[in-house]
Amino acid sequence: MHDLAKIVMVRIEALGKISDEEGKLTRTFCSSAMRRGNNLVASWMREAGMDVRKDAIGNVIGYYPAKESPKSKVQSPKSSERMLLLGSHLDTVRDAGKFDGPLGVLVAIACVQHLHDTGTRLPFAIEVAGFADEEGVRYQSTYLGSRALAGIFNLKDLNRLDANGIAMAEAIRSFGGNPDALSAAKLDRKKLLGYVEVHIEQGPILEERNLSVAIVSAISGQARYECSFFGRAGHAGTVPMKMRSDALCAAAEFVLAVEHCAKSRPGLVATVGRIEALPGASNVIPGKVTLTLDVRHAEDSVRNRAGVRLKQQAMQIAKRRKIQARVEMRHEAKSIMCDRRFSRMLDDIVKRHQGKSLLLPSGAGHDAVAMAAITPVAMLFVRCKGGVSHHPDESVSVKDVRMAIVVMNDFLRELGRKHQ
Amino acid sequence: MHDLAKIVMVRIEALGKISDEEGKLTRTFCSSAMRRGNNLVASWMREAGMDVRKDAIGNVIGYYPAKESPKSKVQSPKSSERMLLLGSHLDTVRDAGKFDGPLGVLVAIACVQHLHDTGTRLPFAIEVAGFADEEGVRYQSTYLGSRALAGIFNLKDLNRLDANGIAMAEAIRSFGGNPDALSAAKLDRKKLLGYVEVHIEQGPILEERNLSVAIVSAISGQARYECSFFGRAGHAGTVPMKMRSDALCAAAEFVLAVEHCAKSRPGLVATVGRIEALPGASNVIPGKVTLTLDVRHAEDSVRNRAGVRLKQQAMQIAKRRKIQARVEMRHEAKSIMCDRRFSRMLDDIVKRHQGKSLLLPSGAGHDAVAMAAITPVAMLFVRCKGGVSHHPDESVSVKDVRMAIVVMNDFLRELGRKHQ
Repeated sequence: MHDLAKIVMVRIEALGKISDEEGKLTRTFCSSAMRRGNNLVASWMREAGMDVRKDAIGNVIGYYPAKESPKSKVQSPKSSERMLLLGSHLDTVRDAGKFDGPLGVLVAIACVQHLHDTGTRLPFAIEVAGFADEEGVRYQSTYLGSRALAGIFNLKDLNRLDANGIAMAEAIRSFGGNPDALSAAKLDRKKLLGYVEVHIEQGPILEERNLSVAIVSAISGQARYECSFFGRAGHAGTVPMKMRSDALCAAAEFVLAVEHCAKSRPGLVATVGRIEALPGASNVIPGKVTLTLDVRHAEDSVRNRAGVRLKQQAMQIAKRRKIQARVEMRHEAKSIMCDRRFSRMLDDIVKRHQGKSLLLPSGAGHDAVAMAAITPVAMLFVRCKGGVSHHPDESVSVKDVRMAIVVMNDFLRELGRKHQ
Repeated sequence: MHDLAKIVMVRIEALGKISDEEGKLTRTFCSSAMRRGNNLVASWMREAGMDVRKDAIGNVIGYYPAKESPKSKVQSPKSSERMLLLGSHLDTVRDAGKFDGPLGVLVAIACVQHLHDTGTRLPFAIEVAGFADEEGVRYQSTYLGSRALAGIFNLKDLNRLDANGIAMAEAIRSFGGNPDALSAAKLDRKKLLGYVEVHIEQGPILEERNLSVAIVSAISGQARYECSFFGRAGHAGTVPMKMRSDALCAAAEFVLAVEHCAKSRPGLVATVGRIEALPGASNVIPGKVTLTLDVRHAEDSVRNRAGVRLKQQAMQIAKRRKIQARVEMRHEAKSIMCDRRFSRMLDDIVKRHQGKSLLLPSGAGHDAVAMAAITPVAMLFVRCKGGVSHHPDESVSVKDVRMAIVVMNDFLRELGRKHQ
């Protein structure tokens, strides 16, 4: 296991050098860097005894057959064979860190390598997916890879254009995929045992608790609102304070109301990430302010109540200040519960190796969200330094990678025993 | 007087059509529109019996001689003659209203017209200045015209470049001015009786009080600060509320502290007009916020104390939230007291015509600020609809223009009697 963790670290470095942009790590959907990344990952999959296919959307998928099944050269999975899917994504944000995504793919390959090296086959096949798009950088649409596997790909997305005007269908075709046969990429839900993903936490909790890994309880639902406050612009020198309708003062009250609301409900997070005051001159009273509000919680009912409450508060602030306010939901994703059986198994294993276990909701979205449409999902979070992600400073220790491999290896063997 | 007010309104419309930009009113320093505007204003000055000169910086100046002096064709003023300067600016902001600036020039011309039509000469000469730049749009430097007349023009400004890379010296030269002889534009302070400017209020107080005009007590001093709050950026979904260092929440507290501070001190105004949260994505906790703070009061000591207090509050907010803050003064203009003798005369006249008088500090800067360097200044504010200025909706009623002409006419005659 020690060597495997080191190998994962070396491979993380190698993948981290495969980029669309010089001097930084950017690897987007169906790009040249993605092709080179897929080829490298495919070679590691083969080394681990897997057959490799590249599917219609551009995912690279390794297949490790089950105990009873005859080894297949190219096609997979066999008709009657059950299958457990592991993996994560191989695309990155712009100027990314090396671990977000690839870590989950490489830990999965390491686990299969260990099975292969020890001549072990499980009662079910294992597939390891390196998803082609989770971050959605190129087409502003997330989970393209896992959506295709889950059969929930939105075919309208094929018409989306990237910044250079290249339609998604064209990009997939040049990459070697087949936009007209995306349904062929869909996995057979009847054969699927589930999907288990290893991913960096992208948050500071494991570091604070001094733990290597945690089990994800749920992937939080998320609502994104656009909020506007409409006051009256005016000259910063000539309008007395008591005659002002300053939209920014109202917005400032709201920003603090958001913070207070989230702080008073366990597990709730709410963020105003963007704000603009118009007209935006130092000598003009803001007449209009727009801001974004992002609200997340593992329980949709808690998140929904917070959204309603905050909208009410925006209206109350506006009414008291005799101005107007508008709060509009622009995006909503419901929460995904992780599978209780998988999570309980992971919990026992983590306790055994780490002394104590920790269940955490994931505030960020993951491929598991898409896979949950057709199969039970589970996730293992790995500590990342300072909670930093989406940044070149992203960092994971070899010790924590080892823990992830150990836990996943035990999980596979235990699941194997249960399915004998 | 009735006709004169109507003429002023017609002329406001005519000047309002002279613009550098089609479909909106924009007339900047030494532009083609400014040349056409100056020529039109010069023709009205001549109609009112004035000799007209265009000076080295690009101001258009009409000269109406005193009683004893022989009428001069071109040169002015005569060596021994006292002189009262009236006027305002002819440049505008981008997409401006028609009254800010031109109203003061045209009311002054109307008053001289009335003297001329009634064959009246005063014991002092009158000059009416149409200043070439008060708004500072082209070179981000205000009062260019009045600074030249007051002899406080900063020669370094001649090297400033406009958005097209044209140096100010070059612009003045192409306009027909002479950047090498700006000192020739300087007025002789020994001859100057004072400077009196009519200007729209640019605020809502006259409208609220249902009055046509007010006397300006002082031009508020102003300080402009740039404030920064430095927290820690993070993922909006994965960092729990209690582990955040959200720079925007701190900034929101500060915005409300600014409002509270200004509200609690009579006459104080303080404004956060611009705010930016970085990195500025809806799903990222703001790691840094910058904002502008504009503080004004007629008494510099009150303004200074407010500035110190607000800086302290920014630091306290930051300390309590365990983040960093920085408050830096970027610009300061001391307050200018209007001349008490002039203001008292105006006060009596306004009471006579309007029933009651009102003394107001000016929260905005005016050419009177520059002229105050060499001579007593006074200002008369005229009501503008909704307090709106720097906007095409800027509006002044003919009734209020008439009141301004009546008051200024009385003022000139009364000052004439005092100087007999």
